[in-house]
Amino acid sequence: MRFKPSYAPGPTDVRENVCLASAKKTNNPDFDQEFIHYYHQVCQKMGQVMGTANEVLLLAGEGILALEAACASLTEPGDRVLVLDNGIYGKGFQDFVKMYGGEPVVLSFDYHKDIPVEAVSDYLEKDHDFKYATFVHCDTPTSIINDVSQLSPLLKEYGILTVVDSVAGMVGEPIDVDQNQIDICCGGTQKAISAPTGLAIVSISEDAKKAMNDRKTPIASYYANLQTFNGYMEKGTLPYTMPAGMIEALDVALDNILQEGLLAVYRRHANIANAVRTSVQEYGLTLFLESGYSNTVTAIIIPEEIGALQLQQYIQETYNLYLATSLAQYEDVLLRIGHMGENAFYEKVLSVLTVIDNGLRDLGFKAKGNLGQLFLDAYKAENEEQ
Amino acid sequence: MRFKPSYAPGPTDVRENVCLASAKKTNNPDFDQEFIHYYHQVCQKMGQVMGTANEVLLLAGEGILALEAACASLTEPGDRVLVLDNGIYGKGFQDFVKMYGGEPVVLSFDYHKDIPVEAVSDYLEKDHDFKYATFVHCDTPTSIINDVSQLSPLLKEYGILTVVDSVAGMVGEPIDVDQNQIDICCGGTQKAISAPTGLAIVSISEDAKKAMNDRKTPIASYYANLQTFNGYMEKGTLPYTMPAGMIEALDVALDNILQEGLLAVYRRHANIANAVRTSVQEYGLTLFLESGYSNTVTAIIIPEEIGALQLQQYIQETYNLYLATSLAQYEDVLLRIGHMGENAFYEKVLSVLTVIDNGLRDLGFKAKGNLGQLFLDAYKAENEEQ
Amino acid sequence: MRFKPSYAPGPTDVRENVCLASAKKTNNPDFDQEFIHYYHQVCQKMGQVMGTANEVLLLAGEGILALEAACASLTEPGDRVLVLDNGIYGKGFQDFVKMYGGEPVVLSFDYHKDIPVEAVSDYLEKDHDFKYATFVHCDTPTSIINDVSQLSPLLKEYGILTVVDSVAGMVGEPIDVDQNQIDICCGGTQKAISAPTGLAIVSISEDAKKAMNDRKTPIASYYANLQTFNGYMEKGTLPYTMPAGMIEALDVALDNILQEGLLAVYRRHANIANAVRTSVQEYGLTLFLESGYSNTVTAIIIPEEIGALQLQQYIQETYNLYLATSLAQYEDVLLRIGHMGENAFYEKVLSVLTVIDNGLRDLGFKAKGNLGQLFLDAYKAENEEQ
Amino acid sequence: MRFKPSYAPGPTDVRENVCLASAKKTNNPDFDQEFIHYYHQVCQKMGQVMGTANEVLLLAGEGILALEAACASLTEPGDRVLVLDNGIYGKGFQDFVKMYGGEPVVLSFDYHKDIPVEAVSDYLEKDHDFKYATFVHCDTPTSIINDVSQLSPLLKEYGILTVVDSVAGMVGEPIDVDQNQIDICCGGTQKAISAPTGLAIVSISEDAKKAMNDRKTPIASYYANLQTFNGYMEKGTLPYTMPAGMIEALDVALDNILQEGLLAVYRRHANIANAVRTSVQEYGLTLFLESGYSNTVTAIIIPEEIGALQLQQYIQETYNLYLATSLAQYEDVLLRIGHMGENAFYEKVLSVLTVIDNGLRDLGFKAKGNLGQLFLDAYKAENEEQ
Repeated sequence: MRFKPSYAPGPTDVRENVCLASAKKTNNPDFDQEFIHYYHQVCQKMGQVMGTANEVLLLAGEGILALEAACASLTEPGDRVLVLDNGIYGKGFQDFVKMYGGEPVVLSFDYHKDIPVEAVSDYLEKDHDFKYATFVHCDTPTSIINDVSQLSPLLKEYGILTVVDSVAGMVGEPIDVDQNQIDICCGGTQKAISAPTGLAIVSISEDAKKAMNDRKTPIASYYANLQTFNGYMEKGTLPYTMPAGMIEALDVALDNILQEGLLAVYRRHANIANAVRTSVQEYGLTLFLESGYSNTVTAIIIPEEIGALQLQQYIQETYNLYLATSLAQYEDVLLRIGHMGENAFYEKVLSVLTVIDNGLRDLGFKAKGNLGQLFLDAYKAENEEQ
Repeated sequence: MRFKPSYAPGPTDVRENVCLASAKKTNNPDFDQEFIHYYHQVCQKMGQVMGTANEVLLLAGEGILALEAACASLTEPGDRVLVLDNGIYGKGFQDFVKMYGGEPVVLSFDYHKDIPVEAVSDYLEKDHDFKYATFVHCDTPTSIINDVSQLSPLLKEYGILTVVDSVAGMVGEPIDVDQNQIDICCGGTQKAISAPTGLAIVSISEDAKKAMNDRKTPIASYYANLQTFNGYMEKGTLPYTMPAGMIEALDVALDNILQEGLLAVYRRHANIANAVRTSVQEYGLTLFLESGYSNTVTAIIIPEEIGALQLQQYIQETYNLYLATSLAQYEDVLLRIGHMGENAFYEKVLSVLTVIDNGLRDLGFKAKGNLGQLFLDAYKAENEEQ
Repeated sequence: MRFKPSYAPGPTDVRENVCLASAKKTNNPDFDQEFIHYYHQVCQKMGQVMGTANEVLLLAGEGILALEAACASLTEPGDRVLVLDNGIYGKGFQDFVKMYGGEPVVLSFDYHKDIPVEAVSDYLEKDHDFKYATFVHCDTPTSIINDVSQLSPLLKEYGILTVVDSVAGMVGEPIDVDQNQIDICCGGTQKAISAPTGLAIVSISEDAKKAMNDRKTPIASYYANLQTFNGYMEKGTLPYTMPAGMIEALDVALDNILQEGLLAVYRRHANIANAVRTSVQEYGLTLFLESGYSNTVTAIIIPEEIGALQLQQYIQETYNLYLATSLAQYEDVLLRIGHMGENAFYEKVLSVLTVIDNGLRDLGFKAKGNLGQLFLDAYKAENEEQ
Repeated sequence: MRFKPSYAPGPTDVRENVCLASAKKTNNPDFDQEFIHYYHQVCQKMGQVMGTANEVLLLAGEGILALEAACASLTEPGDRVLVLDNGIYGKGFQDFVKMYGGEPVVLSFDYHKDIPVEAVSDYLEKDHDFKYATFVHCDTPTSIINDVSQLSPLLKEYGILTVVDSVAGMVGEPIDVDQNQIDICCGGTQKAISAPTGLAIVSISEDAKKAMNDRKTPIASYYANLQTFNGYMEKGTLPYTMPAGMIEALDVALDNILQEGLLAVYRRHANIANAVRTSVQEYGLTLFLESGYSNTVTAIIIPEEIGALQLQQYIQETYNLYLATSLAQYEDVLLRIGHMGENAFYEKVLSVLTVIDNGLRDLGFKAKGNLGQLFLDAYKAENEEQ
């Protein structure tokens, strides 16, 4: 296969030292106590990046396994669960709740804005009898970011546990699990962490552990059961053979992040994202959102006469660059530029925007300037301000 | 971590070209149609190695996910399932059956022998009202191999679907899925295939697909639901982001196998295993089994006064070699030598046996000769016979 | 070290499959006959790319070793050697000639143009008593390409052997060793071949071999003596331990080239180079050359008030991009853009030119347009013409 | 090519982290100042391992380039050079001396013993008018080690510079360049350092530098001229493009050595070598040497009726293991086992000796025991003594 650069919102580029780490020989992950300790250390390093002293687990699977495992482990038949919905993935949480016998209550909001905290607060005053609530930190199909620093503490005031999908948020945006009192925070390796796809990440608070321990029914899964890891350090064994190469790769990817510094990484994402949003609008395009702009991905409305799918296809064929449109009702409406992790460097985004500019003009768009140059100008301005 | 060679029954050594393949940059696995086709090709190549034209799926997870997915996808509440039990993993299938609402009927046999086909036949004459049956091809804790070529066809005669756990069997032993009429055959990448841990393998017969389609209740899982892959080629999208590097690594590992030739690979395993069994007995040790000796792993009884755990620990500390004992009641009784996949080469096994010989003698064992030499003599005799 | 993309005229980017090949375990290169054969095959594949059935040798060293080895092996004390000089490297050949006792006769031409064939022809009519002549295919300090298809045959008519330095030419430009009757053609791996630095390449004609065999004095070097390889296939041994990983890497790099197709590779270089030259001039800059424009590198005159060194430094510090100025008298005058091998892809050159554009404007240059866009427009026009 | 394990005296196994380092992308080695500094650091780290504060250079070439460069840079026409000869490589130094116009005086000794220091001392009393002297630290064809700690200081007393070939010695044996007053110490990466083949190593004392500066004639080579590196740090440029990946690989290999600790590495080599020598003799074979046993390689006399070449060939074909015989008059007499660098681990040597044992017995040798076992017993005894 010819290599096709991709700026979809994940998987992102994997830095060379991370790739090479995944090729290393590894010790026996089943019984070797040194490996068990190593696994634990990488979990803790992951926790450091997520801002939590809670237990962190790395599951052998794609990010969605983290969401299913959170819901499977918490939900008992009949449990009421509050599903905050202002995006396609946010709404999707209800399926996991139902699958494990829970009763989802979906609270829906405008998809063009981040979740309005006041509205949630008003709702909770009237109805707050929920075992837990779910919401998405960064809902990629529309590129929205929700304010986890207000939502989780608010829910916690009512004794409601929170399950937050930060798969496409963490590392690109602050998640600060402990400060924000998130009970189960879910992540994946292939987004802003920029490690290979294949590990799902969960942090589990003491309250969440208590809820699992207090269950009256067994968890209806083995692979999605977070309790199978209970006491793995003491027992000296993990619930299944761990993909040791993936753990090594994640370890190096986390080192890359910590070496750059979390604040510097957030700043880099913010500068890139701000410059993308500024330049795209100056260029004559419209953003999908009215508020809650994510720093990891930007969704742009493509004029109807061109269409997002045609633009995507054209750019792929003409410029060998892979971009994503969106899902469901937005499939032919939105073009999304992923600018997270290793893809959030100005020289890469510059190429991408120059190609989009040319693609749009080739297809008849009347542009107000050169998109790459507008981006570079905006990016320099961003950096100068600091 | 210092590298510790391991001859546990998996994970096995990964050949260098497979390691390096896992470090390659990959195209976007979510939407890129070329990747979807590539995934499909690797699935078909996996099918070729398993001897099946059935659909084969590669799931992002450890081998046990294949077992859970098979049971989750087939079992409806109340379904009767026949669990053939002559080993620890064989018996364990009942947990998955129960978890998804089925009623396991456990038919237990002597753990020192492979499943007696006649006894199963006699039983089925009386009771054969089962949706499906489960058994393990190679039950590693006791190193037994069961005769899939007789068991699956027999069950099929009664219209009973078969779910076979061949995680530790396939590639080391013939599995011949189509010839043996296996409905769902489960595998993992880290055993005799000698690819990195991280992909679960299932082949699904048309009868198994029909059983899933005919379900009256939804499958109570997403991650363990085999139907989420339905029509992925037509839809051009897979149910979650695939670990593309793992697929590339598996592809190369399968090429290695096909290049050596499946028959040559089986012959290599058989010669090594025969020589191990012969030499271990000449040396003065006793095999656990009376029949059904696997060619991928050998379980040896360690004299009580030494103990398997002490021997394992001593060898690890003294010779930096990692060996496995067994599980549960056999934990301090059996030492297991994994000789599958890339570990099934005489020069590796020779080192391992020489170390075991020295370890045993250091701990007071009265040996009848030099184990490494006995092995090499037996191995040469094996090869000369052909 | 932080990675700094470099578009100097070499070393170029190394494709991932080439990098990974260099990490492979290798067999004993000293005595293993299979390795000797493998070395020979890669030499022949190199010959295929160079268009020759002559013997090709890969020496363990940087490209300059090829030049020294050619001169060391041909030159005897007192030999007259014609040194064609229209560039810094061309002139430099005289040093090797002198070092090994020869008498260089330097024929110098305008550095802004390729070597004028007629002038050489006129000169030869009067004086042609030379053992061999030297010239450079692509003289990178000024980015000139000389017409090997006319020069070598002309010299050959007079019985003069030719030593051609095509280190920075071959693969980016046709070299066609046999058709052009080049006696010793020199190359290196790190330029348009895009393999790691570390192998020097020479092809040796029968006439050149005869000249070596007819020497009256021994060759005054071992490491730069091409005769040490004589009969290595028959003897089954090479003159020193070969860097086997480098041979493997080169092998894969040559496969990449042959898979793309030599003509396609030349076309890609030509299109990129034409578009660079067109756009740079439209943008308001001046090329150094008046004729003989190389397709592998372009030398641009930087306005005095900015200066090439300041621009280079500024771009490196501001945009983390490494560009080369030139050597000697041109050091502060010329900026050179290397666009050869893996660096000759439009998306890379686009980034580079956009950065140069911004760097120049930051330093006060009055540009006539956006350089990246001018390049992309010119590049598209190039491609449409075909 | 099928991988063939090799226990010739080099190239040795390269540890995985070193292999992977050689696959890394590298910055521009020509002008990037950060790379120049990095090169310098690795040179200094190499010096640390060699025990010297002298300048150390890494040349792009095989180890023999270091020898030629030392002789080329020191020798002026007519210079008298003392060549100490007690082995094939030791004697070979005279060729380099002659090639660059020097007059070698060869002082030959018994090839079965290390150079007798008293005899050299006696000779020097009578004749010591030499610009420099050459000798080999470890002369691999006969596996001899010479006592550099006495020879170099002795020669230095007479004002004679020393050029020592420690290609196959350093890291496996103490070299201590400064303590032993070695003027030019030569090495290669592929022996006990266990990095990929491709870099030649030289350390240069101030006295050696002075000798080069005081030359009246120019050095008759560019590639083998150590003065081309003069002032590279100040000039910010190296004499040719460095193979940056090789430098990175060497860097990691040196880290491996320093992490284990030089004394531990020497101890490991000594223990392995002692155990090899003890067991080989107990087994009934004879060592070639009477004194001066190297810890990096052992030469064993193979009974005439078997012959070293037949044994080598048989083992290669039957057991896929590559061993070296010797050179010239010893080609069919000696089998050599390389046990240096990454090959000096007991589990590897154990396999090798077991195979040799079987090979010999297959060919009719009457052995006194099991060679692998004898080795392991001797090795344990070695370790216990400490």
